[in-house]
Amino acid sequence: MESDLQPLIQALRDFAQARNWEQFHSPKNLASALSVEAAELLEHFQWLTEAQSRSLPADKRAEIGTEIADVFLYLLQLADKLGIDVIEAARSKMLVNAQKYPAPSPPA
Amino acid sequence: MESDLQPLIQALRDFAQARNWEQFHSPKNLASALSVEAAELLEHFQWLTEAQSRSLPADKRAEIGTEIADVFLYLLQLADKLGIDVIEAARSKMLVNAQKYPAPSPPA
Amino acid sequence: MESDLQPLIQALRDFAQARNWEQFHSPKNLASALSVEAAELLEHFQWLTEAQSRSLPADKRAEIGTEIADVFLYLLQLADKLGIDVIEAARSKMLVNAQKYPAPSPPA
Amino acid sequence: MESDLQPLIQALRDFAQARNWEQFHSPKNLASALSVEAAELLEHFQWLTEAQSRSLPADKRAEIGTEIADVFLYLLQLADKLGIDVIEAARSKMLVNAQKYPAPSPPA
Repeated sequence: MESDLQPLIQALRDFAQARNWEQFHSPKNLASALSVEAAELLEHFQWLTEAQSRSLPADKRAEIGTEIADVFLYLLQLADKLGIDVIEAARSKMLVNAQKYPAPSPPA
Repeated sequence: MESDLQPLIQALRDFAQARNWEQFHSPKNLASALSVEAAELLEHFQWLTEAQSRSLPADKRAEIGTEIADVFLYLLQLADKLGIDVIEAARSKMLVNAQKYPAPSPPA
Repeated sequence: MESDLQPLIQALRDFAQARNWEQFHSPKNLASALSVEAAELLEHFQWLTEAQSRSLPADKRAEIGTEIADVFLYLLQLADKLGIDVIEAARSKMLVNAQKYPAPSPPA
Repeated sequence: MESDLQPLIQALRDFAQARNWEQFHSPKNLASALSVEAAELLEHFQWLTEAQSRSLPADKRAEIGTEIADVFLYLLQLADKLGIDVIEAARSKMLVNAQKYPAPSPPA
């Protein structure tokens, strides 16, 4: 399925190919890199209270946006290597979650 | 910007609200959960060789697809809480990366 | 230097050798496994408030003790593969930290 | 039990207290910091082959020793907050592992 993500995925392929980085981009290595980036994102929050994390100053928020991008870019590359459509995978997982954690009935 | 991700983001909001989970979904906690899911994804690869990770059997690939979905769903929720558009953030970061790591000139 | 950790380190060597697991225990793989175990430890805390994390029930505390052990065992194995003495490394790092973050002077 | 680790644990307590950092050192936050440091350690290995990770140059090995120290120092602080003896926990876990993964019988 063509999606908004397709141009990004193609750009990531071109970027890696132009730098001859495909040799490094085994799924194993991309999964490590993804985990490392997720931790860099977490690092911004580690000493904050939950309340502070809900009202970040603009500069901190911008830095965190960059880390979110890093996580997303590795996630797209890993999924692409494995032939997985992240949007489809996310939709399927939400159906599983809905069955696993049924919503409480609303009050009558 | 309206994107393919918007329905997913809305579904995640509704899902959390229906279960009264918003109290748990501080950016700090979502960043932890994201990091935990990224590690669950990595766990599938930890004892594989890089070569094995490039040719996964179908059942393993399906399990990994589910972990990729989990990472993606927490990433979308965290970005949504912070008012960050993941596609925009990813595009911006790719421009930064292109400047940081210039492609070698092609041979003449 | 002989330390309390030496018998543990030797037991880990024997354990891996008896199972022919040394082929899997490259420093790269052990670093992945360590990171995965650290995330399993974090998972216990991800939806708790900080206050809740300071007063865990006994059964939760026991589970967390097991995860702490897993992290420690991989840390010892990784350090052993690299010929690093974790106690010496920790002492050296504490000296660096003391210079990097000087203690405020006590009030006169 | 008095161990080689006791002076380190005491030094970590004194260090945090002198800087008034105990307010930040909830078990939840220490578990995050541990996970972040484990990822910084992993980062050194993410693009290496397993073979390269088995024969690191001396300067890289020294950098990795510092990251190992960071992981260990947070692990000790977290365990200390929870009243867990890491050596005892590790010994117990090794007994569990020995039952879970029995060694193959040696050839007759």
